[in-house]
Amino acid sequence: MTWIEIAENSPFGPENLPLGIFRVGDEEPRMGAAIGDQVIDLAPLASAQMLDGSQFAEPSLNAFLALGRPAWHATREWLLELVRNENERDSVEPYLIPQSAVTMQLPFEVSDYVDFYASEHHATNVGRLFRPDAEPLLPNWKHLPVGYHGRAGTVVASGTDIVRPSGQWKAPGADAPTYGPSQRLDIEVELGYVVGSPSILGRPVPITDFKEHVYGVVLVNDWSARDLQAWEYVPLGPFLGKSFATSISPWVVSLDALEASAVRLGKQEPPVLPYLAGEELTNFDITFEVYWNSALVSSPPYREMYWSPAQMLAHLTVNGASVRTGDLFASGTVSGGEKDQRGSFLELSWGGREPVTVDGEPRTFLEDGDEVTITGWAATPDGTKIGLGSVTGRILPAVS
Amino acid sequence: MTWIEIAENSPFGPENLPLGIFRVGDEEPRMGAAIGDQVIDLAPLASAQMLDGSQFAEPSLNAFLALGRPAWHATREWLLELVRNENERDSVEPYLIPQSAVTMQLPFEVSDYVDFYASEHHATNVGRLFRPDAEPLLPNWKHLPVGYHGRAGTVVASGTDIVRPSGQWKAPGADAPTYGPSQRLDIEVELGYVVGSPSILGRPVPITDFKEHVYGVVLVNDWSARDLQAWEYVPLGPFLGKSFATSISPWVVSLDALEASAVRLGKQEPPVLPYLAGEELTNFDITFEVYWNSALVSSPPYREMYWSPAQMLAHLTVNGASVRTGDLFASGTVSGGEKDQRGSFLELSWGGREPVTVDGEPRTFLEDGDEVTITGWAATPDGTKIGLGSVTGRILPAVS
Repeated sequence: MTWIEIAENSPFGPENLPLGIFRVGDEEPRMGAAIGDQVIDLAPLASAQMLDGSQFAEPSLNAFLALGRPAWHATREWLLELVRNENERDSVEPYLIPQSAVTMQLPFEVSDYVDFYASEHHATNVGRLFRPDAEPLLPNWKHLPVGYHGRAGTVVASGTDIVRPSGQWKAPGADAPTYGPSQRLDIEVELGYVVGSPSILGRPVPITDFKEHVYGVVLVNDWSARDLQAWEYVPLGPFLGKSFATSISPWVVSLDALEASAVRLGKQEPPVLPYLAGEELTNFDITFEVYWNSALVSSPPYREMYWSPAQMLAHLTVNGASVRTGDLFASGTVSGGEKDQRGSFLELSWGGREPVTVDGEPRTFLEDGDEVTITGWAATPDGTKIGLGSVTGRILPAVS
Repeated sequence: MTWIEIAENSPFGPENLPLGIFRVGDEEPRMGAAIGDQVIDLAPLASAQMLDGSQFAEPSLNAFLALGRPAWHATREWLLELVRNENERDSVEPYLIPQSAVTMQLPFEVSDYVDFYASEHHATNVGRLFRPDAEPLLPNWKHLPVGYHGRAGTVVASGTDIVRPSGQWKAPGADAPTYGPSQRLDIEVELGYVVGSPSILGRPVPITDFKEHVYGVVLVNDWSARDLQAWEYVPLGPFLGKSFATSISPWVVSLDALEASAVRLGKQEPPVLPYLAGEELTNFDITFEVYWNSALVSSPPYREMYWSPAQMLAHLTVNGASVRTGDLFASGTVSGGEKDQRGSFLELSWGGREPVTVDGEPRTFLEDGDEVTITGWAATPDGTKIGLGSVTGRILPAVS
């Protein structure tokens, strides 16, 4: 349904049209839409069509995101018309740039970054590993989407190298902690929600207003140093075990594009409090693929997540906390019920005790030089697949 | 030592010269320095003196903060000369505005907000209250400054009303949580450190570089809903119990001004790891005063804090996490060893069991309409006092 040539396996078909920030050589970074293996250069195209498109010339999506849902909708309708209508070919073709000729940037400036913990499989696995003698799920887990704030300033663009973090950790049986490079460097496969329209301080966002505030999603790899985390995390939660880097994918896929992959949220028992309840709560039928170097090691399914994103936003703001343009809230690690659906190496290797085979070798946590790439695909009832692209990063040795 | 008339009890003597953002009527907010009960209007004064002062015309301190220590030093030297040298009177007087004629704004845009937990008295008190049957300090506490990320987007200017947060909490003995307005709304008296010069991702900031990155301090009131916090905080730390609001004072006092109040850090036993060690580690001899409505209920001493701010910054970045201009990291609640030195009502009322007398009435946590004002004064060996000004906020009823 487009005059643009698109490979069959492209993540970016004509219904997707994700937005990102690209750079060509020394030119200023600006906003583009992806289609197939090309980028639509939106600022000059809008200009040529006598449209007001100053937001497209910005070096981040924030100005566009701040415009709110009516503008998001109008932009999507414009783009759909451009790529569907053969008559637009002559006016659009001059503004198509091969993705191979651009460098993708961090798509938006992250205001606040919140990380939830919304997968029951993941929370159960982690509970079993960290607290083997207790109930794996804590008493609050099924009553609220547990979450915490992460470090916004170290959210980085896909492709950014990750320096192995150093810090304190305590070896099993040791009396005192050691300082040194993390020995248990891990990933977390997550879906991140990007806030466009801000809310008002002191006013909770009702669960029905999710789509007024959230523009779309990115892939998130929340790199984690399990040894630092295990030593530091009581009583105030993860800090240095997470704050060294969080990578996100370059293309932001809109909720409008994802809508076709919405699936009913699973049953929540015990029932949730009214501010978290709704008839229309959904998940998305997204499957991730995790490549550890060249090996596909896991395929976590998003459709099994316990908490919906609308519940996350309603909970995040129920105390009157406001959201801002550029806020990112992530789902927490996505793990399914099967072993090859686990979204962290901590779980895949069961705390390091059951190595995973990577390129013929037994592996537990990340080694220097390792590269991890996560892709994501949303399936829809008509068979169309909406790709989220990928997020990738490579481990550099610790700074000495 | 100044030609400007200053009341004897003014927090802002001629050695202090804190910076903030003020607004006069409908004019654009801009940068000023406080002296006595006046504000020096820096942008037009710099202009009149043919100095480059574009940073003074900005609506936040961020541009100035980003210039780094040489510019901070030069600005302080300029200001000291202006207020000390009688010959400058004619050129400066036209740019003095009474503080009563201005409205103070949030002094800087907060990038990331980190909250530490650096008072041994506070951590011990909270440990005893929350985990009565265990050692009050957890095993990591004396090895690293425990901290976590808070919500940057809800750091608000002093004077902003605080809407009582609602959320989930679980009554003692109840089977399930309830939704409703917090019944245990509290304060936390803290000192906040303001980062000016950014660091590089992947490169820890050595403990000796503290003053290269940190410009100065503000008073912080980290409002806390203890019932929400108690129910939510395992295992990922405080979230909604804190994220509804954090108030900061309008005037940022520089480290240069505070230096005269530096005191030796207390002994740390067991010894800390090398990245947290140094000969020159200090605290500041600051005493806070906490007014609950008109009653002075506590005077927490900063000089007894266990962890120094240079240790906080070194720890925060030891994993390679970078800091940015506008980052705020706070000390955590400041409590001394005496009952009237505790920096939260949770501690002052011992979990609500020992009411405090406020205006003749027994009180435990905050009621609607209550106002809390925190002041802070740094003492120096020569008897000069350097005031931090005050941070204030009033409780509005919960939104229904």
